[in-house]
Amino acid sequence: MPDFHLPLNLYLERYPHKNTALYHALKDMIASGKLEYGAKLPSSRELGGLYKLSRGIVSLVYEMLASEGYVASEVGRGTYVAFRRDGLPGKEERPVRESACELSAWGRRVAELPTRKPEEGPRPAIDFAVGYSDRRHFPASDWNRMLFAQVRGMADSYYGDKFAALGHMPLREAICRHLQRARGVDADPSSVAIVNGSMHAIALIAQLLIDPGQAAVVENPGYPGTLSAIAAAGGRPIAAAVDGHGLVPADWDAKLVFVTPARQFPTGAVLSLERRQRLLAWAYEHGAIVVEDDYDSEFRHRGRPIEPLKVLDRQDRVVYIGTFTRTMMHHFRIGYAVLPSALCEPFARARQLFEPHPTSILEQRALAAFMNGGDYERHLRRMGRVYSRKFELLRGELARKLPDLFAPAPSDAGLHLFARWKRSAGFYEAFRRECRNEGVLWSDGTGYYVEKPAPAACFGFAHVSEEEIIEGIARMRAVADRMFAE
Amino acid sequence: MPDFHLPLNLYLERYPHKNTALYHALKDMIASGKLEYGAKLPSSRELGGLYKLSRGIVSLVYEMLASEGYVASEVGRGTYVAFRRDGLPGKEERPVRESACELSAWGRRVAELPTRKPEEGPRPAIDFAVGYSDRRHFPASDWNRMLFAQVRGMADSYYGDKFAALGHMPLREAICRHLQRARGVDADPSSVAIVNGSMHAIALIAQLLIDPGQAAVVENPGYPGTLSAIAAAGGRPIAAAVDGHGLVPADWDAKLVFVTPARQFPTGAVLSLERRQRLLAWAYEHGAIVVEDDYDSEFRHRGRPIEPLKVLDRQDRVVYIGTFTRTMMHHFRIGYAVLPSALCEPFARARQLFEPHPTSILEQRALAAFMNGGDYERHLRRMGRVYSRKFELLRGELARKLPDLFAPAPSDAGLHLFARWKRSAGFYEAFRRECRNEGVLWSDGTGYYVEKPAPAACFGFAHVSEEEIIEGIARMRAVADRMFAE
Repeated sequence: MPDFHLPLNLYLERYPHKNTALYHALKDMIASGKLEYGAKLPSSRELGGLYKLSRGIVSLVYEMLASEGYVASEVGRGTYVAFRRDGLPGKEERPVRESACELSAWGRRVAELPTRKPEEGPRPAIDFAVGYSDRRHFPASDWNRMLFAQVRGMADSYYGDKFAALGHMPLREAICRHLQRARGVDADPSSVAIVNGSMHAIALIAQLLIDPGQAAVVENPGYPGTLSAIAAAGGRPIAAAVDGHGLVPADWDAKLVFVTPARQFPTGAVLSLERRQRLLAWAYEHGAIVVEDDYDSEFRHRGRPIEPLKVLDRQDRVVYIGTFTRTMMHHFRIGYAVLPSALCEPFARARQLFEPHPTSILEQRALAAFMNGGDYERHLRRMGRVYSRKFELLRGELARKLPDLFAPAPSDAGLHLFARWKRSAGFYEAFRRECRNEGVLWSDGTGYYVEKPAPAACFGFAHVSEEEIIEGIARMRAVADRMFAE
Repeated sequence: MPDFHLPLNLYLERYPHKNTALYHALKDMIASGKLEYGAKLPSSRELGGLYKLSRGIVSLVYEMLASEGYVASEVGRGTYVAFRRDGLPGKEERPVRESACELSAWGRRVAELPTRKPEEGPRPAIDFAVGYSDRRHFPASDWNRMLFAQVRGMADSYYGDKFAALGHMPLREAICRHLQRARGVDADPSSVAIVNGSMHAIALIAQLLIDPGQAAVVENPGYPGTLSAIAAAGGRPIAAAVDGHGLVPADWDAKLVFVTPARQFPTGAVLSLERRQRLLAWAYEHGAIVVEDDYDSEFRHRGRPIEPLKVLDRQDRVVYIGTFTRTMMHHFRIGYAVLPSALCEPFARARQLFEPHPTSILEQRALAAFMNGGDYERHLRRMGRVYSRKFELLRGELARKLPDLFAPAPSDAGLHLFARWKRSAGFYEAFRRECRNEGVLWSDGTGYYVEKPAPAACFGFAHVSEEEIIEGIARMRAVADRMFAE
């Protein structure tokens, strides 16, 4: 098959790994119709030979494409394109009259939520995006073994988890033991709710506590999801100031505050003990609920942690939220909320309204086993070392190479660095666009401001290799030298 | 270890399988403290010898208990109890003052939703419960192979599904192909939303469309979840009559109706074509949305299906909901909604508010592969034969053995039989209790009435073996003979 041509080099520039590059190259050719329905593909040996790829890589990519319906294999026929571009009727062929429908007040609010659009075009090779983890160091074989054991064991759990609206009880118990060891939180498993990622808990709590017109306090800058949750409930956000010691307490007229004490999102500031106590005193006085989002304090590179609000709380006013997405994998959407007694029952009912039976029960069970066997703690310890190295490297490179452009906020923990842009605001977008053209991107920190936005960058480093950190900052320096030379 | 005693026979009466019986026997002894922390358990060979169990069964049960943290193994020490009853602090030890919190109007409505309490005590050996599937005939090894392949492949899908709020696109495409073949529905993948079970779609749609005080039509009897969804949104349910041809259309003053046309839940009646057309005409006139819940029409034992409302609809007013829970496994919480264009964007936003990234992505990918490879259709065909045999057997046994007690509603499809109680209402509960004592139970149909409840039974037969069907009905006959002899 000598006339088979694939623009693989183009894709290798975009995707760091050969298999991902090959996957996207083939998929795009099929989806665009350049490889037509029924077209025969080279054997894995032939294709491997043509593009200097191992046969295993080609086979893996063919398997992925087959599982998505793009290709199929038959004995005697080999692998061929199984995707018909015209296989599904387009909208224009349907004799259906589209018509509007009246949304509820909630529906209208949700439909009008601002969206953070995905960046257009392919992601560049070096991508300091926030929210990922290091998959190269993930103990995939240990984890898969746990998962496989649960897959095989599931046939026997028949009635088992049917009424566990708040999630798999052994996982909730394992989380309590972990929280006690790692954060000093004394939680009862009955007060722990498993959720599908921390945003799930934030949105349910906002809906449970906020009536239209009511106020809720958010950090500025802060996590945009919190703002969406408040807006969907019809609430009125009060933007609280943030400085080098985290959120600045004030005498807000509100019943609810969302805060990230362990590591302010996105700045990384640690809420001081004195402010923690003031915040709790405010909550007691106003009968308010404090939602403590502890989204990535598992990884502390220096210094000692301060006790969570949940530990300091003596009036059962704090919801403590944690997630496994950052410590496990990006697609692993399991988080949890430790609830005040007064919220346990309403939260369970709310959870159960949408999902009468728990989802991800396989992953919940595997995670319980992973935690109970000690693998999770071991994984955290090992990743802590990996991330600390990357953290120090990135901090150093930013300070050495880009001191004129970015002012990184002091930070001792976590998986990203927040840095304010030091030059005039007008240059920021142009610089970002130029860097992108050079194959380097970062999460835009500007969008995290509730009001008075200032240009800033969020450099997520968890999934980026040490070589890529050095190369990425060097490319940014080169762009800056070109742009700001005069 | 001759003094190790386990009440296994007691558990074998409750649990049909040896491994489940052994699992619960050991777990209960550990949880109750009869087996204390640190206590050594017999080796799998010893325990197998004592209770005539294969070593493999004992090992599997030990593994399950280990994954839940009840036992642990160490080289040289064997398997021992790892669960401390006093390992977690109880509420009474916490110096925390519990305090109430003010819920939103939505929170108060959710907290006051009626709950269907789980039946107390262990489920009896023969349990005609609704909502399960036949796990003995499930192609577990084929499915597990798909799942394992996805587990191994996941490392490569990094950015892949990040912005797919409505779910994994290849799965949505596979669902469209399936719906076209099986139900004649022409759906565009962009209008298909993956949800965590059909209740997830029902609750989100109710919240998107119903404002407090607004009316929504439900079937009487009908699915209690629909009623909860309406109540949570603050809506006012209108109970529509149901007869042998399904829901009876009327000129309701409402903007939303929930209906189960393929097989009315729970009666099994098929909505006639004429009524389908009247229902759509009503929706067009009132600008209403029709939610068509097609929860188990995959299994048709006789006759031909009528076209779904979604196919008959010419004004894009129908939401079509389906689920894989009944066709796959009970713990497999994946369903979907085919949305009218006007609802796609609001539904995606609502979904994304709670879950910015899709959950169960592993299972979504594996299911897409399972469907694209033809395994799903094969599985449905084979299960169709299995279920048809059970369906005919149960119908026959009910007619032959219990004609004085139950009047089964005519039904041609699905996985349960609805049967009205023929004797006086006062006897129904007593009969049910007595049967339970004899090891037979069924889902109570009485609770499905929105108003004017009448005693009725729902016999779910999917997970019950043919022998158990015969034995269960025979035991019920024996109870009836004893109770109603005089």
